[in-house]
Amino acid sequence: MGFRFELLGRHAHSDARRGRLHTPHGTIETPCFMPVGTRGTVKAVEQAQLEALGAEIILGNTYHLFLRPGHELIRELGGLHQFIAWPHPILTDSGGFQVFSLASLNKIEEAGVTFRSHLDGALHQLTPELSIEIQAALGADIVMAFDDCTPYPATEPQARASLERTMRWAERCQAAWTGTPAPVNALFGIAQGGMYPALRREAAERLSEMDLPGYAIGGVSVGEPRELSREAVRAAIAALPEDKPRYLMGVGTPAELIEYAALGIDMMDCVLPTRNARNGLLFTTQGTLSIKNARFARDASPPDPNCGCPVCRRYSRAYLRHLFLSREILASQLNTQHNLWHYLDTMRQLRHAIELGQLLPGTLG
Amino acid sequence: MGFRFELLGRHAHSDARRGRLHTPHGTIETPCFMPVGTRGTVKAVEQAQLEALGAEIILGNTYHLFLRPGHELIRELGGLHQFIAWPHPILTDSGGFQVFSLASLNKIEEAGVTFRSHLDGALHQLTPELSIEIQAALGADIVMAFDDCTPYPATEPQARASLERTMRWAERCQAAWTGTPAPVNALFGIAQGGMYPALRREAAERLSEMDLPGYAIGGVSVGEPRELSREAVRAAIAALPEDKPRYLMGVGTPAELIEYAALGIDMMDCVLPTRNARNGLLFTTQGTLSIKNARFARDASPPDPNCGCPVCRRYSRAYLRHLFLSREILASQLNTQHNLWHYLDTMRQLRHAIELGQLLPGTLG
Repeated sequence: MGFRFELLGRHAHSDARRGRLHTPHGTIETPCFMPVGTRGTVKAVEQAQLEALGAEIILGNTYHLFLRPGHELIRELGGLHQFIAWPHPILTDSGGFQVFSLASLNKIEEAGVTFRSHLDGALHQLTPELSIEIQAALGADIVMAFDDCTPYPATEPQARASLERTMRWAERCQAAWTGTPAPVNALFGIAQGGMYPALRREAAERLSEMDLPGYAIGGVSVGEPRELSREAVRAAIAALPEDKPRYLMGVGTPAELIEYAALGIDMMDCVLPTRNARNGLLFTTQGTLSIKNARFARDASPPDPNCGCPVCRRYSRAYLRHLFLSREILASQLNTQHNLWHYLDTMRQLRHAIELGQLLPGTLG
Repeated sequence: MGFRFELLGRHAHSDARRGRLHTPHGTIETPCFMPVGTRGTVKAVEQAQLEALGAEIILGNTYHLFLRPGHELIRELGGLHQFIAWPHPILTDSGGFQVFSLASLNKIEEAGVTFRSHLDGALHQLTPELSIEIQAALGADIVMAFDDCTPYPATEPQARASLERTMRWAERCQAAWTGTPAPVNALFGIAQGGMYPALRREAAERLSEMDLPGYAIGGVSVGEPRELSREAVRAAIAALPEDKPRYLMGVGTPAELIEYAALGIDMMDCVLPTRNARNGLLFTTQGTLSIKNARFARDASPPDPNCGCPVCRRYSRAYLRHLFLSREILASQLNTQHNLWHYLDTMRQLRHAIELGQLLPGTLG
């Protein structure tokens, strides 16, 4: 098998773990942050720059790539790695979250979800089996089970129903994945359960019994208070096996990355660094900074004086502000590079602190 | 003086010259193409990438930088090189062309041009003296005289009037430039004259008598037939001194770069490679290519199989088409890098052919 999770050590002062994910396209040091490359590109950053920033794995999106350019086309062209010229690890999500959040007229049935494309209104049905087929065509190193993402708020019966459907779909995904000719991808199951710790624990326990290569916690960062999601995540982690990687989906701020790593999470992804960059919001070691602010008009200092990224080494706040106000493409390019570096560097420091048994850098975010 | 033009040699088969422009911020091999960085950025390309592409000089725009962020701010921050983090040569145009083409309600008087900003409608007046003051504040290596750009078509009396005003303004620019404390910039005069070869010759002769560091030919590529501008340029060149650089403004396609270099032009600039890139039009050694074309959907070959640029070495036409149709920022980034490389490489090959006495690569465009 091309996929293996190696647990290197545990943190002296928290439940954080130091690990290494081996995949057919390379190794990922964990805990890790995964930049989001929805439509086959991490927005505004070139692949060579992602490598220079130290990204070891990026995400692709099943829903978007299925609609355009289509998974058959990508399969013909040698798979997603080849198509986007990224020879390093890729994780694809299942499309479950997007059919709810982006498509119109979505209709959830036991078979799957019927929806209209946000691009042209065409009617499609996405099922657990089709999601796995698409992800196999894309050829990602890690593929995700097709889940029913529990919204917030949800009553306990609603969360229970969503959990049960997610479990049934996970089994169909596992069957489809096992039936894929020579599967090299690692399938991760997703624990749902809303903000009910008991349901989260149950979901994690039942998933664990499926003995999948890894487990994810979904349905977090959907508008709930942070205390609730923290308890839900904690409950899920407690029921997940030690020897498998744990992926918390769609989280979060730099402070949350550290907080969840300290609870024992190994992998995280989020659009915050890239989306905020395009809106002129920079993450720095001194907190966030809105680059359009008038007080930066004559500020010759770098975006973050403590940052060693290619942007902070060359450009000033005054210049970044000018680019942003002028709506220049370069604003998105530079802001995104900086924010991704900040996220990836936060993880590098975090891994280092775990190795040395130091307290985690809780003030980074 | 920090500015010097060195004539290295002449071409055996044309009037092309091989030269070297020495400036306070570095040396430029000529004939050269200068990427356009209107608002302090060559759109969609980072400065480090421009260096990697081999750009030796870029343009900045007096009109745009005067309106935003303002030349005083840029002066305070150490000048344009410092502000945009480009330590290599910069040429700024005078703003003359933009007050006609972009601003509304422009009113040409002997003193200068009164216009409303295209950004906020504010009323401004740009004069020869103010243009030089702005360009001195920006600190460009090469600054341009404020000219009256003759439109096409123009009657001979109209072209004559425009030429005469341009000459009077050139003298005021020279006086203002000479009066600038410790001017390190090189002032170039601009020959107008419409499509009348006799007027072009006269403009060039009279400018030559001013003994400026360099001379430009303006008012070309304003909608006229190519035969007319070729004759107008030829007439101007014949009256320009041998020992000064000759800059043809706003030209052109790759084929035109070669054609005009063969007539004895040393410097050219154009928005074509960058603007066309953002519209999905690529320049290749086999002609232009519209990347959105359906025939590229499954085309795994590079944009130009004969190109050695960072884009052609990594990405396929199918991927570039996907990015363009998805309106991803990366489409502009990659297309622009490729087109600029094609232009800069055309000039490298051209210089090489001049040195070796080979026929010029006339089929490149």
